[in-house]
Amino acid sequence: MNKKYKLMEHTYRLVISCPDKVGIVARVSQFIAEYGGWLTEANYHSDAENQWFFMRNEIKAESLSLGLGEFRAAFAKLAEQYQMQWYIRDSTERQRVVILASHASHCLADILHRWHSEELYCDIPCVISNHENLRSMVEWHQIPFHYVPMNKDNKEQAHQQIQQMIADHQAESVVLARFMQIIPPALCTKYPGNIINIHHSFLPSFVGANPYQKAYERGVKLIGATSHYVTEQLDQGPIIEQDVIRVNHRHNKDDMVRLGKDVEKAVLARALRNHLEDRVIVHGNKTVVFD
Amino acid sequence: MNKKYKLMEHTYRLVISCPDKVGIVARVSQFIAEYGGWLTEANYHSDAENQWFFMRNEIKAESLSLGLGEFRAAFAKLAEQYQMQWYIRDSTERQRVVILASHASHCLADILHRWHSEELYCDIPCVISNHENLRSMVEWHQIPFHYVPMNKDNKEQAHQQIQQMIADHQAESVVLARFMQIIPPALCTKYPGNIINIHHSFLPSFVGANPYQKAYERGVKLIGATSHYVTEQLDQGPIIEQDVIRVNHRHNKDDMVRLGKDVEKAVLARALRNHLEDRVIVHGNKTVVFD
Amino acid sequence: MNKKYKLMEHTYRLVISCPDKVGIVARVSQFIAEYGGWLTEANYHSDAENQWFFMRNEIKAESLSLGLGEFRAAFAKLAEQYQMQWYIRDSTERQRVVILASHASHCLADILHRWHSEELYCDIPCVISNHENLRSMVEWHQIPFHYVPMNKDNKEQAHQQIQQMIADHQAESVVLARFMQIIPPALCTKYPGNIINIHHSFLPSFVGANPYQKAYERGVKLIGATSHYVTEQLDQGPIIEQDVIRVNHRHNKDDMVRLGKDVEKAVLARALRNHLEDRVIVHGNKTVVFD
Amino acid sequence: MNKKYKLMEHTYRLVISCPDKVGIVARVSQFIAEYGGWLTEANYHSDAENQWFFMRNEIKAESLSLGLGEFRAAFAKLAEQYQMQWYIRDSTERQRVVILASHASHCLADILHRWHSEELYCDIPCVISNHENLRSMVEWHQIPFHYVPMNKDNKEQAHQQIQQMIADHQAESVVLARFMQIIPPALCTKYPGNIINIHHSFLPSFVGANPYQKAYERGVKLIGATSHYVTEQLDQGPIIEQDVIRVNHRHNKDDMVRLGKDVEKAVLARALRNHLEDRVIVHGNKTVVFD
Repeated sequence: MNKKYKLMEHTYRLVISCPDKVGIVARVSQFIAEYGGWLTEANYHSDAENQWFFMRNEIKAESLSLGLGEFRAAFAKLAEQYQMQWYIRDSTERQRVVILASHASHCLADILHRWHSEELYCDIPCVISNHENLRSMVEWHQIPFHYVPMNKDNKEQAHQQIQQMIADHQAESVVLARFMQIIPPALCTKYPGNIINIHHSFLPSFVGANPYQKAYERGVKLIGATSHYVTEQLDQGPIIEQDVIRVNHRHNKDDMVRLGKDVEKAVLARALRNHLEDRVIVHGNKTVVFD
Repeated sequence: MNKKYKLMEHTYRLVISCPDKVGIVARVSQFIAEYGGWLTEANYHSDAENQWFFMRNEIKAESLSLGLGEFRAAFAKLAEQYQMQWYIRDSTERQRVVILASHASHCLADILHRWHSEELYCDIPCVISNHENLRSMVEWHQIPFHYVPMNKDNKEQAHQQIQQMIADHQAESVVLARFMQIIPPALCTKYPGNIINIHHSFLPSFVGANPYQKAYERGVKLIGATSHYVTEQLDQGPIIEQDVIRVNHRHNKDDMVRLGKDVEKAVLARALRNHLEDRVIVHGNKTVVFD
Repeated sequence: MNKKYKLMEHTYRLVISCPDKVGIVARVSQFIAEYGGWLTEANYHSDAENQWFFMRNEIKAESLSLGLGEFRAAFAKLAEQYQMQWYIRDSTERQRVVILASHASHCLADILHRWHSEELYCDIPCVISNHENLRSMVEWHQIPFHYVPMNKDNKEQAHQQIQQMIADHQAESVVLARFMQIIPPALCTKYPGNIINIHHSFLPSFVGANPYQKAYERGVKLIGATSHYVTEQLDQGPIIEQDVIRVNHRHNKDDMVRLGKDVEKAVLARALRNHLEDRVIVHGNKTVVFD
Repeated sequence: MNKKYKLMEHTYRLVISCPDKVGIVARVSQFIAEYGGWLTEANYHSDAENQWFFMRNEIKAESLSLGLGEFRAAFAKLAEQYQMQWYIRDSTERQRVVILASHASHCLADILHRWHSEELYCDIPCVISNHENLRSMVEWHQIPFHYVPMNKDNKEQAHQQIQQMIADHQAESVVLARFMQIIPPALCTKYPGNIINIHHSFLPSFVGANPYQKAYERGVKLIGATSHYVTEQLDQGPIIEQDVIRVNHRHNKDDMVRLGKDVEKAVLARALRNHLEDRVIVHGNKTVVFD
């Protein structure tokens, strides 16, 4: 469960969003430089329409003359002055990510393989599913598998059970790997910007159930997938990543389901990677993705 | 206006759709072979769900021992037996295509260049626009330009004028090259499956006006364009071709408009080419595209 | 090892290539129709330059009034007349595919998951590798894993051992899932058009070893992968499928390796699926792929 | 020739490359902030392997308390200290771009339309061609067209004539819009990083003449185009942009030529736009493209 990872470059990621003003880059980069901070990557975005500023600085850990605690204390004053929403995270700190799955295996198998082959840097304290069929696959990865049956009579109880499990495992993020169940508002509220869904359509087309059936009926020439943060509004949350694949008249609904799987898992994997590397900043109902 | 084209391969295109049955390919190909017909291309599609069959045969003209008129007469009996909707067209016969444009130049310029450089094989008897700004570009191509001003008071009259012009020019097909005006039902009815529109979104997302603004507001990570046949239902007709381009948080609405232009013109050009080569068959609200 | 698959549509696939002549489609489709054969899919290609004809007919098994043996006997005469290279295969017959892997897991894991989730229809009698690290993953799928160590001193012996294993397992096709070892000529000769490799570049760019390093050094803006049939000429065999992914100045060689994995596995999976569905016909050093 | 452009945002673009050190961002952004400079866009790249740093700052012109001349004088000291290669350019200053074309019209028509519709911001003082056929198209845009016939006997003289014309028109950049002639070393040397070519293959595949023929013969499943800066080594210069399009067995060489045109013009247009917006920095034989 707590895998040994290949040596990852040890950096601190300073992520900021705030009202746009003259001199923010200067102040922040000066602050970093003052303590010897060597930038390995720096991304800035100024949203002219909303007058908002976004920033991600990746700083070589060993170059910095102060620790993370001291940095936070020292930076707080500057942050307050510019009304920043901000955080700094140690790249070697593994986020705890709970995965919710259902019957379909493709997204879960893809994430587990990326995790197992050390491409995704996180801990997966458990996988929760409303079906038993993926238990063996999950347990082979030495990850606990929790079965929470769901039916129309026990929805609320199951929701509470899942929410408790997520809390017990101290998850920071939750991935819905084709979970196919509506997430209760309480959970959305508890982990804002930290629950990642994969929807099997190119949103906002085909919101809700059976998007491939709808795509087939409309006769579209491309099908897609969308990874987004979950909010209380179904399929309306901030989009992190999307992609499409070409289809034609020879493809029936089952072909679309099959072809769509490859897009779904690729889109979810890219979204999750960017999320784990602190490259995604939510602002309103949109995302800035510094990839 | 009647350009001299490079020698195009002289073929006959036999296009068929009918209820699916055993032996259609055999009967049709036997019929063709009987008269010495050499197939340079053959496409078949059996729609299992709707039990419908689609077929496009391209036959080397010189190989056929009978002329087009005789072929039609001889084939009619077979066609009736299988309840076929069908036609056969000489590849060297240029369809007459009237283009309707508005203020934006990109799609029109693209089509005109493809036509001028002999990539699109058709006649363009005229371009009709509700703006004057593209007159010089059109006339440089030696194509007549008709200005039909449109405002909220003269809609009906302008529609009639346009419809008359299309009829006078004996158009078989009409291309809406970002015409941006709703086509009157009478016109839709008169040229079913022959009026091609380019919509600046990945339909069914963002139907109607201002799709880029809507795409910007929703924060999508891909924008697209859709070419479809026009029906009385706005943006609901059979889709011929679609494509997308990646955008990100740095792109504002104007950037999307600019990037979208390249997708729009590419999608429209591919749709139009397939239409002119008799590669598109409409069935219900979908298309079979034998490209 | 011999998985139970979901009910697959029961068809016969008749695959043909021969010199082009008038009337082939008519003769073949008439032959099929004579025995009541219902075509669920039909593909034809006439290569004008080489005057060669390619054909794939998928026939509903239950519609045919004769069995496969009788069909073969009856068709042989027609085939001889047209100098056809041809075969007919039962869609429910699972090809036996031996996979050769090395240390890298991504392609193998991808194929195994597609096979396990019944997306790839074949038997995998064993996986052979020159490393031990993937044994547990393979064995979880209940597939035998054979370890054949290879070093500069035992190459020939290892080659013979592998060849013997492939023969013992009665493999029809061999997949090199990033095997990274040159295949001995004897093996290439024994399974022509049945050994599928995935090369981690957009061939013919970056033939041979370390393509990502070379791509990085050249500063390309796209990296790719190529699946091809193995011949005695390294990385020169007929290409089945290729794809690319965008990279930029921020990606170092390790990033390219990581991003490339997703292209490699997607390209290999598509090639293998088409191969197993008898959609690939080799002619000279090229392929016709009826997908 | 000197078009009136729509109001373009008035900015200064400060473009820098230098050996990587701690504190560069801080020093530069502090310098900018000191004079009130408002960053509308900022891009940074640290090349870890080569220990080199790249930076592009776009500064709102009206926010800066000093003019361009003063800025240059003041910044020179800082630049020297960090051994910077740098320049600052006014966004409203139109670069002078001479286009060299041959017989093929697609790239030239595409650039001219983008320029005419104010999508490309530059002056085009003239088009030079070794064929007469595009004169009328160029002159319609009110751009002088110079015909310089080239044959095997007059190469050197023609080269000198072209070089003289480029100098006379005070060109800063030169675009080879499918010019199809080798550029003399003297010209390459005179405009390093300012001569942009479009090669009709996915380099480094198919260097030199007839890439589509070679692609056809190799049986590739994707064809591409590459825009690069011209150096003395044929098709070996730093790559700015590349893209591909899917082909299959049905496409012969002429189809590839036709399909390739769309990729060529799109790739060249993107490369040119980035070049004109000072988004491309050459380092060694590679480019950093801040798009």
